[in-house]
Amino acid sequence: MTVPEPLSLDALNALDRDGFIAALDGIFEHAPWVAEAAFAHAPFDTVSALHEGLMAVVWARPEAERIAFVAAHPDLAGKAARAGGIAAASVSEQAGLGLDRLSDAEFARFERLNAAYRARFGFPFVICVRRQTRDALLDAFEARLLQGREAELASALVEIGHITALRLVERVVGPGLPKVYGRLSTHVLDTHRGGPAQGVRVELFEVGASGRALLRAAVTNEDGRTDAPLISAAPLRAGRYELVFHVGAYFRARGLDLPGPAFLDTVPIRFGIAEPEGHYHVPLVVTPWSYSTYRGS
Amino acid sequence: MTVPEPLSLDALNALDRDGFIAALDGIFEHAPWVAEAAFAHAPFDTVSALHEGLMAVVWARPEAERIAFVAAHPDLAGKAARAGGIAAASVSEQAGLGLDRLSDAEFARFERLNAAYRARFGFPFVICVRRQTRDALLDAFEARLLQGREAELASALVEIGHITALRLVERVVGPGLPKVYGRLSTHVLDTHRGGPAQGVRVELFEVGASGRALLRAAVTNEDGRTDAPLISAAPLRAGRYELVFHVGAYFRARGLDLPGPAFLDTVPIRFGIAEPEGHYHVPLVVTPWSYSTYRGS
Amino acid sequence: MTVPEPLSLDALNALDRDGFIAALDGIFEHAPWVAEAAFAHAPFDTVSALHEGLMAVVWARPEAERIAFVAAHPDLAGKAARAGGIAAASVSEQAGLGLDRLSDAEFARFERLNAAYRARFGFPFVICVRRQTRDALLDAFEARLLQGREAELASALVEIGHITALRLVERVVGPGLPKVYGRLSTHVLDTHRGGPAQGVRVELFEVGASGRALLRAAVTNEDGRTDAPLISAAPLRAGRYELVFHVGAYFRARGLDLPGPAFLDTVPIRFGIAEPEGHYHVPLVVTPWSYSTYRGS
Amino acid sequence: MTVPEPLSLDALNALDRDGFIAALDGIFEHAPWVAEAAFAHAPFDTVSALHEGLMAVVWARPEAERIAFVAAHPDLAGKAARAGGIAAASVSEQAGLGLDRLSDAEFARFERLNAAYRARFGFPFVICVRRQTRDALLDAFEARLLQGREAELASALVEIGHITALRLVERVVGPGLPKVYGRLSTHVLDTHRGGPAQGVRVELFEVGASGRALLRAAVTNEDGRTDAPLISAAPLRAGRYELVFHVGAYFRARGLDLPGPAFLDTVPIRFGIAEPEGHYHVPLVVTPWSYSTYRGS
Repeated sequence: MTVPEPLSLDALNALDRDGFIAALDGIFEHAPWVAEAAFAHAPFDTVSALHEGLMAVVWARPEAERIAFVAAHPDLAGKAARAGGIAAASVSEQAGLGLDRLSDAEFARFERLNAAYRARFGFPFVICVRRQTRDALLDAFEARLLQGREAELASALVEIGHITALRLVERVVGPGLPKVYGRLSTHVLDTHRGGPAQGVRVELFEVGASGRALLRAAVTNEDGRTDAPLISAAPLRAGRYELVFHVGAYFRARGLDLPGPAFLDTVPIRFGIAEPEGHYHVPLVVTPWSYSTYRGS
Repeated sequence: MTVPEPLSLDALNALDRDGFIAALDGIFEHAPWVAEAAFAHAPFDTVSALHEGLMAVVWARPEAERIAFVAAHPDLAGKAARAGGIAAASVSEQAGLGLDRLSDAEFARFERLNAAYRARFGFPFVICVRRQTRDALLDAFEARLLQGREAELASALVEIGHITALRLVERVVGPGLPKVYGRLSTHVLDTHRGGPAQGVRVELFEVGASGRALLRAAVTNEDGRTDAPLISAAPLRAGRYELVFHVGAYFRARGLDLPGPAFLDTVPIRFGIAEPEGHYHVPLVVTPWSYSTYRGS
Repeated sequence: MTVPEPLSLDALNALDRDGFIAALDGIFEHAPWVAEAAFAHAPFDTVSALHEGLMAVVWARPEAERIAFVAAHPDLAGKAARAGGIAAASVSEQAGLGLDRLSDAEFARFERLNAAYRARFGFPFVICVRRQTRDALLDAFEARLLQGREAELASALVEIGHITALRLVERVVGPGLPKVYGRLSTHVLDTHRGGPAQGVRVELFEVGASGRALLRAAVTNEDGRTDAPLISAAPLRAGRYELVFHVGAYFRARGLDLPGPAFLDTVPIRFGIAEPEGHYHVPLVVTPWSYSTYRGS
Repeated sequence: MTVPEPLSLDALNALDRDGFIAALDGIFEHAPWVAEAAFAHAPFDTVSALHEGLMAVVWARPEAERIAFVAAHPDLAGKAARAGGIAAASVSEQAGLGLDRLSDAEFARFERLNAAYRARFGFPFVICVRRQTRDALLDAFEARLLQGREAELASALVEIGHITALRLVERVVGPGLPKVYGRLSTHVLDTHRGGPAQGVRVELFEVGASGRALLRAAVTNEDGRTDAPLISAAPLRAGRYELVFHVGAYFRARGLDLPGPAFLDTVPIRFGIAEPEGHYHVPLVVTPWSYSTYRGS
């Protein structure tokens, strides 16, 4: 499957039934009937309205059909993914979390969870992997295994809503996009000098059960910000993170005579992200002897 | 050698020359002449004055004698320490840093540094190990290797001043003790509720090149403080530390509905200590969405 | 009436019935029967237990007697106070708020409130004036005029509890004093330099509807604190306050080159006190370009 | 004199000598020779280059001519201003500070200062009034009276640079505008809730020797900011200011049960502005029990 060129909403609205279905192929896996039924409500004013129209088709089906719809999704990190036998979109989304290259122990854990889940609910576990760190995904998997069947079916559809919204905004451009991307940014204020701190190295780590992984490094500019947000144009993966600010080097470069070791050298700010579509601004207000941070906006 | 009972300053002042020398035996290693010469200035009004009187004897000697005095000290972490062939006081002080149980690689590194130092200066490297973490000690060792000979001899005597002051306050009790102990304390303020945070688990780690080691754990009391300072009645070892405050668990226990994962769960404060005799108060002022810290008093 | 020497709780417990009553004379106005009835429960282990025993006598009386008891209290700021015709203790307590030297307009306002209150409840308005600023007292007066009769009678007795506890701790010394005093303190941390700010002028004002009045001025000591708490050994008067910290002069005296005008010169912290027996610690953590404050402990 | 329509820099560059002089008429008071001499350097790439070219003409003249140039300016707040006998541009600029409606006492003070200044320097006191509060202007007046003659002549020309740059950017539009405007903004973060504080009333006062005057009031929007900066598209007047944030009402509206009186009700932030062309961002990070502020960017 090749990724089609993005289509404008106007162009989509102008298509006939078959063209409309073809244009949305692959957004809902193995379910061309979703686009087919939604076509009755075209034209759509906004991309959000289009997405809601598509999801409304799914929610309106009887339970048995909703279950069959969910059941058409591949297992998470399952054998099929390893073997390449599942939908291309799912494959590349799962690859983003490294679910295509698990260790044998991790693979075995997923197999156990998948089996327990299928035994309990009769359909595969579906989650929008682009909104999760691997640790958060495993936490969610275990939490959802404890839910009742009805609540769990609803959870699966909500996740399919996230998955398909992300696919849709990459396929159709136009007004009123659904909110699918978050933003993480920072800002360093030097209240010793009374201005933005320029030249501070900032590192962003994802913190997992087995350690932390560097996601990005940047240096603050003359406004004390990084030139681009640390994360943008993507959902923030729910999970735990750490920002590390190299303030000791910054203050020494400014000519301050800090003791050795400095009271503050590398300042870690550890925080959690729970809203993948949220704006997280995590500033550092700092002197050689103090700092503060907060969830800003 | 058994540790003598602490003696009062008055009792010391009342001793005759031989008694005075015997009472101070071991404070200056292999150098009974220090106490002997200081006796001329007895009685002493304060323990500080006594210590200054003793050190003044050393500083007044000609350079060759000062070098000989320094040279009588054992190598740091050297073969003698391993073999038990050095003064008991030095041995127990070095043991506090684990210098008596180095790995072969670490032992080899100390041997190299000791050899380079002796080759350069002709006397052994002396440092008050009770005022250093192992990493800080190695940094100091390397920095002092770069000094000129005169400056380095002075550094060695300053360190002997620290070593002997610590020994003296454990041997002689009385007014005007030299300032040899530091203090590290913390305090957690909950500005969401507007009062001290009771029940917050706090951990203190020493941070070294090869990882971090837990030094103490405590839980804050109804005043938001730990029942005792985190460190007191000892010098603070110069080095790098991390305090970790378990605020997520605290706020959840207070009944707040935090997102999962919480924005703040365990808050690390990483800081350096450069003044072993200083008071470091490192408070945390915290809500579920913000915190600040500073070097307080 | 002369103020008797403070008596120890032990000495009080050792008195016979008449001595006991005489020793507590004046604490409950025109009501020697309170001490008389409480004597049956002597000896008391703590001063708190003594006070609770006395108040329990009052609360146990039938409503008509409780009303008669309240009715024996003088009007607040009333003609009798002006004319000197009321109990000495009440007079000096009211004088602390300046209720003995009201302007004619203020006197008229109190007369109107007193008349409205008597018309509504049939007994005089009683409040522990030592726990109130004048503005807070007037707010409380108006709020209590809106209460039901039963709630208001209870409020009056609670206030008499405060009044008599304050009188008792000045008359009887011993273990287990009732908590009648609050404390207001401050602390200035200079996070530009990394230590306590010494030499900062601090002013405390009471803020009222008609302006602010200086209560105290002090200069911070080497620990960044005032030598004594700003208020202690007295209830804090409920009301609004302002602390003003002269940080511009402090930083200039430290040799910093601040712009003219400085970003921060005199820093006002305006805050309310609602708990007369509480501990309010209101620190200032400050650089020339930033500050923070919080209710500490 | 009517204010001409703004002219584009391109159009100005295309004018002949007489047109160029006419287009810049009134920017330099009574000195058409400035534009005339600068014309030799046309065309100008930027409006800044144009302004620098004009000022370079002035600075290049011999001292006697620079003095004559300054001397052609009207007295500040002088009789001529009252009588309407001075240049219209100066009049409206002075009116912005209320210098056209001084009390008799204030008028007398200006007359005394003007007379002392003329007696000392032989030319009138010139200052860019649009960059000053009235108090800052009087402080500057007194400070400049103490300068030497050469330094003072330079100060006068620097002020004329400010005056003429402000006039120029209102007359000529184009690339590379000189930086003549500042900006004052604020932002309220609620770290009790973890988001921007919407609906907080914010008042900005100018603080003078004789009291404070309300300049602006606004209410924060959903991003915790005011819809427009508190001051923009104008120089910030050097001087002292106070921002007042009505946080008690905000937290009560959010449903929090604050004590009476609240610990924080109206929070004043008093600050000075020293850079009329600077960006001053003065945020409030607040809970019901704490707040912090800093000079941000």
